[in-house]
Amino acid sequence: MTLSSNLPSRAVIREVGLRDGLQSIGSVMPTAAKLEWIRDAYAAGQREIEVGAFVPAHLLPQLADTANVLAFARTLPGLTASVLVPNLKGAERAMECEAGTMVLPLSASHAHSLANLRKTPDEVVEEIKRIVDAREARGAMTKIEVGISTAFGCTIQGRVEPSEVARLVKAVVDAGVDAVGLADTVGYADPAMVRSLFKAVLPVAKGKLNCGHFHDTRGLGLANVYAALELGISRFDACLGGIGGCPHAPGASGNVVTEDLAFMLASMGIETGQNFDGLVALRSKLAVWLQGELLHGALWRAGLPKTMNQTKLA
Amino acid sequence: MTLSSNLPSRAVIREVGLRDGLQSIGSVMPTAAKLEWIRDAYAAGQREIEVGAFVPAHLLPQLADTANVLAFARTLPGLTASVLVPNLKGAERAMECEAGTMVLPLSASHAHSLANLRKTPDEVVEEIKRIVDAREARGAMTKIEVGISTAFGCTIQGRVEPSEVARLVKAVVDAGVDAVGLADTVGYADPAMVRSLFKAVLPVAKGKLNCGHFHDTRGLGLANVYAALELGISRFDACLGGIGGCPHAPGASGNVVTEDLAFMLASMGIETGQNFDGLVALRSKLAVWLQGELLHGALWRAGLPKTMNQTKLA
Repeated sequence: MTLSSNLPSRAVIREVGLRDGLQSIGSVMPTAAKLEWIRDAYAAGQREIEVGAFVPAHLLPQLADTANVLAFARTLPGLTASVLVPNLKGAERAMECEAGTMVLPLSASHAHSLANLRKTPDEVVEEIKRIVDAREARGAMTKIEVGISTAFGCTIQGRVEPSEVARLVKAVVDAGVDAVGLADTVGYADPAMVRSLFKAVLPVAKGKLNCGHFHDTRGLGLANVYAALELGISRFDACLGGIGGCPHAPGASGNVVTEDLAFMLASMGIETGQNFDGLVALRSKLAVWLQGELLHGALWRAGLPKTMNQTKLA
Repeated sequence: MTLSSNLPSRAVIREVGLRDGLQSIGSVMPTAAKLEWIRDAYAAGQREIEVGAFVPAHLLPQLADTANVLAFARTLPGLTASVLVPNLKGAERAMECEAGTMVLPLSASHAHSLANLRKTPDEVVEEIKRIVDAREARGAMTKIEVGISTAFGCTIQGRVEPSEVARLVKAVVDAGVDAVGLADTVGYADPAMVRSLFKAVLPVAKGKLNCGHFHDTRGLGLANVYAALELGISRFDACLGGIGGCPHAPGASGNVVTEDLAFMLASMGIETGQNFDGLVALRSKLAVWLQGELLHGALWRAGLPKTMNQTKLA
């Protein structure tokens, strides 16, 4: 299919199911299952996977095995394994463990920032500067990516000003981080908001803003991805089976669904390197590992269109 | 929220649940429930509703009460009630019953056209000309709308050429129909295809192409709506609860979900006149009327964002 003139020709889907997805799921997935997930995702063509978080184990027992999971992920050639780190302490561990990328959440919502990290956004920016310095001091290779969470609104504070998002992006880019993404943490974004916020922020991001993290809570996840694609954004977080819904909205979906996003991109002629059969087979395993959890997504059931063959997706 | 420069400021959601939705559902909905559905949809602000089809009752027992349902719909001031008609005979009934609009399906897929109507697309165009003439002869007020089905591909034939879609649109516009829509009957479309096909067809449609009919079979329904909105298309078919899935993909969703679409449009500042609480309450009734059928959609569960209040949706 002909591309819209301004769509990227390639895009990256970063699998965040092992972190953002599992994080809100109560029963702890055994490390062996996580390794199998990563192995199969890698075999299905995924080359960026967020494998966990360096946070205190008592806060998130689900992610307590992050160091082990990361160590395995690092054995797969060409795979960029990222970990979420909330502070300098987590960052030190990420660098010790030689994570490819550490992702630092920075809430654009003052209220959410206080609730989540007990720091104001500006205090988090200061911590990020310390992390940049610590990496410099170490000479570590771990990339630093900032995810601006609640960028499109917040369940606590409500509205988040685009000017505040732009200010924070500029601050962390000036601080020397490698990449920035905008996250619709609570599923408030619509395509017009995505277009307008990315347009407002891109000019101050000095080429570092390249990731969209959309939750599908209200069904607009893929529409939001499309709106971002039109502005040249070419990296997206997604969860296999759309896991990771919000505890306040039982049954609500989490991140955009990896396999549906892979289909959308492939159908539009945007290369992702992902393999449909592999993703759907892995989704079936996930359904077994997470027995009792509601998985989301449409493609696994409907299958590929007759107009599209497997080779086109790969 | 700021509009993207080229989005329409108003849009119409036509509820097609009573026709496209119910059509694939086995158990016949009692007429009384249909009237209650229409009454509540009208109260929730819907002003275009497809109430049934004039097809032989033995083929579609679900829609055998269309004349009665239409008669009721006509009592509601300002409501445009449409009916699907496959041929001149159905069109005569639609005009006798003074339907506001009759929707004529015209498959762009040769194979689908033969399977569905036992006529080639060109034979259907000839029938449409006879219908235009019959309306002229009668002096009837019923508008004639053509829905180009399988415009984005076909489960039987596979690929459908955009040039064929454009040719058929030109033919029916030249024949004197009032409106044309493009339908992704089987859920094959992606936003790039939507953009590209509408762009190809708009120049030959002489201002008559104004409707998008998208199925959410592969999760891309709302993304496709957004792509069409960007080209100024401002009427969309939708089904409450996303009913109407394909018999060949059990559990697959049908048309885009009315209440989710109403949310997306309202969130983008596009006026639809629809009331969220009313739609969600009606969805709950639908769940009772269609006990055992899988309903779809996200918003009924997640609720409106804190950043958006009811008044904004209405």
